[in-house]
Amino acid sequence: MTAYDYDLFVIGGGSGGVRAARVSAGLGKRVAIAEEYRFGGTCVIRGCVPKKLFVYASQYAEHFEDAAGYGWQVGTSTFDWKKLIAAKDKEIARLEGLYRLGLENSGAEILETRAELVDAHTIRLAKSGKTVTADKIVIATGGTPNPHAALPGHELCISSNEAFHLEELPRSILIAGGGYIAVEFANIFHGLGVDTTLIYRGQEILSRFDHDMRQGLHKAMVAKGIRIILTDVFSEITKSAAGGLVAKTMCGETIAVDTIMLALGRDPNTKGLGLEQAGVEINERGAIVVDRYSQTSVDNIYALGDVTDRVQLTPVAIHEAMCFVETVFKNNPVAPDHDLIATAVFSQPEIGTVGLSEEEAAKRYPELEIYRAEFRPMKATLSGRTERTIMKLVVDAASRRVVGAHILGHDAGEMAQLIGVSLKAGVTKDDFDRTMAVHPTASEELVTMYNPSYRIRNGERV
Amino acid sequence: MTAYDYDLFVIGGGSGGVRAARVSAGLGKRVAIAEEYRFGGTCVIRGCVPKKLFVYASQYAEHFEDAAGYGWQVGTSTFDWKKLIAAKDKEIARLEGLYRLGLENSGAEILETRAELVDAHTIRLAKSGKTVTADKIVIATGGTPNPHAALPGHELCISSNEAFHLEELPRSILIAGGGYIAVEFANIFHGLGVDTTLIYRGQEILSRFDHDMRQGLHKAMVAKGIRIILTDVFSEITKSAAGGLVAKTMCGETIAVDTIMLALGRDPNTKGLGLEQAGVEINERGAIVVDRYSQTSVDNIYALGDVTDRVQLTPVAIHEAMCFVETVFKNNPVAPDHDLIATAVFSQPEIGTVGLSEEEAAKRYPELEIYRAEFRPMKATLSGRTERTIMKLVVDAASRRVVGAHILGHDAGEMAQLIGVSLKAGVTKDDFDRTMAVHPTASEELVTMYNPSYRIRNGERV
Repeated sequence: MTAYDYDLFVIGGGSGGVRAARVSAGLGKRVAIAEEYRFGGTCVIRGCVPKKLFVYASQYAEHFEDAAGYGWQVGTSTFDWKKLIAAKDKEIARLEGLYRLGLENSGAEILETRAELVDAHTIRLAKSGKTVTADKIVIATGGTPNPHAALPGHELCISSNEAFHLEELPRSILIAGGGYIAVEFANIFHGLGVDTTLIYRGQEILSRFDHDMRQGLHKAMVAKGIRIILTDVFSEITKSAAGGLVAKTMCGETIAVDTIMLALGRDPNTKGLGLEQAGVEINERGAIVVDRYSQTSVDNIYALGDVTDRVQLTPVAIHEAMCFVETVFKNNPVAPDHDLIATAVFSQPEIGTVGLSEEEAAKRYPELEIYRAEFRPMKATLSGRTERTIMKLVVDAASRRVVGAHILGHDAGEMAQLIGVSLKAGVTKDDFDRTMAVHPTASEELVTMYNPSYRIRNGERV
Repeated sequence: MTAYDYDLFVIGGGSGGVRAARVSAGLGKRVAIAEEYRFGGTCVIRGCVPKKLFVYASQYAEHFEDAAGYGWQVGTSTFDWKKLIAAKDKEIARLEGLYRLGLENSGAEILETRAELVDAHTIRLAKSGKTVTADKIVIATGGTPNPHAALPGHELCISSNEAFHLEELPRSILIAGGGYIAVEFANIFHGLGVDTTLIYRGQEILSRFDHDMRQGLHKAMVAKGIRIILTDVFSEITKSAAGGLVAKTMCGETIAVDTIMLALGRDPNTKGLGLEQAGVEINERGAIVVDRYSQTSVDNIYALGDVTDRVQLTPVAIHEAMCFVETVFKNNPVAPDHDLIATAVFSQPEIGTVGLSEEEAAKRYPELEIYRAEFRPMKATLSGRTERTIMKLVVDAASRRVVGAHILGHDAGEMAQLIGVSLKAGVTKDDFDRTMAVHPTASEELVTMYNPSYRIRNGERV
């Protein structure tokens, strides 16, 4: 039983890996965790957390404008990008410290090195060249922005990783992609005063989201002054004589900007990990193949978080880590539950969503009731801002269950979290109807839409 | 059947009265509605709506301060009270117009006059002196701030009514009361730069709220610079030589301020309504006594909203109006449901709450699990603001049902609305546990508190 150096060796110090290591160590297991860069992973170091701090920073310009309608006269404001970066870096360092402290307190051994598999029980520590052995291994190495290597000039572009550390705030930026990362950064840069363009190959941003969310956010972004180019992609990126960049597109546009950011999806970090030597199977996208208990093709090796390309979200990785601990160290097999995950897009306005889009629900249910409200938020009445809030419930007419809820507007993320509880509990539209409104709020619309806006029967709007 | 001039006569053009009139008229009933002042009632004219607009206005000073931590340098700002009042008045006039339009479109007759009962079916219109008759009568005359007539100098004070129309923003204000109106206005005036003091006779502000909310908000208000005096009341108010006011308190304090506001509860508007002639019973507080269907002691006369002193909230009055229509005009007796009403206090930070406080739950359940999180909101990490968010779930240990949820922090009102759906549906703590977090949000704390902070057994914390 103690033939191995460790009971558990975790490769990757992000949210999932740290949780697996910390909780396992807390159970008295001999645990090591290896991280080659910084503890905290995508979420803390170059994802959710610094992104949300940037979102806050980018909202102040609107606050200053909005104040006028409320009787305020605000002096001229200026923004200092370097100050924001320094403040953000300090906070990220603090959070990284908390991650380390949690690991240390749990008794896990922290190894600041890249780690690669030699075989199913042996790990090579790249810094020292030393090998160690472990009974169980968790791979939680996360993902990385797709560099779009096929694009001529792709090496001139940045990804979200670099966006967090730009030396200077560009005067103009061109962001490629239509997913939440592209959309969030477009709103951030625009809010900080950068001339912002988004280019996406699809028909509309945020594919797979409910169409009202997609169109509503698109409109709001354009109304703010963000340019959105659809059904087009880059053909080539070159440097301009003036020191900036020039993007050529398939549809024949030529766009000169300071900075180009690619947000074209994320790839699992599986290269050079020794997966082949250990016999760990990966799929055609390079993601580690796992069963419902996060077990890989090798019995004692598990994988969780973004490297498995299931649902690329921090809370999901943490949940998978907790399930791993239950399954492997508590003898209580628990499969992660990936159903009805509420999510937010921290665009401006925000999107909060849980369950099925109208389109997806229409494929699964013979009859839907759609409850939809669109209104000007109260704050905008005095600020004069022309934004619209959209709220929508998708209801299975037969069972009355709410199968999807979608919000575009302020605090949509907070709302989605709590609607998530309701949907997870399987509540019906009648439960919404029975709930008294809290006035004046935006979310009261969700409990006061008593009559369907329209119905979908056999996939057709009636 | 057409012996009466109207099928329904509604006295009072607030939220409840307008809803009853509009929906009844929409059913083809011959309806009149009398209002002596302005349509919209407390909510629209001098309550929820203008209050929330003031809250928005009062938050900008903090936005300007917070921006610095995010890299912004903001020029000097000044606030113009008259501009806010004018903008607010314009918006209120717009909303009042919508209320009227809704009534007109429904076919209800609008009577701009005070109306008083002569007998159970006869109403005198004060402006013309004319009398009209009606089969059914709804009294929805609302409430009015208690003037505290026993206090020497009370006539020198303002109430919330006047606070919406002050000619000038005072330099200092002293607000008496510990309820939500007192607390909200204290935060509003402080945010607009007024030196603000709150005086309340009780041990802590916001009696009947959960103690964590009460203490947490108290601390936050004091930290901002609001002075709170507890267990003391005014003994006398006098004019000062300098043109301001001087308040003397029972505990011997003498406080000189520009303005004193009394927020000491609200009285039902039942005086001079002819209730006695009609035989409509009132209670010792002056509120109209109603049964569970909002029927008064006179068969054909109903009362709803604040005048009945059940739950003084706009959505409740509207709900009671809808139940009245179902019961009386649709032959479908529906009693208003006053259980599990989510509410918000638009203090800064906000309170959102639904269900039982810890103290109240401890009286009803033999064992409770209390889940409590207190943390610095993410936005405050860079702004440097020292505020704390508190989130709390009160769970009946036996059934696992969540019987109370309490939030102090940004957007707490929006959150309470949606937790309200869950509690109304009777969800358990396990439903919260099963829900995936939305990261990074504040509300994710509500679904990631897996272990009770403490338990209450037979009323004792263990």
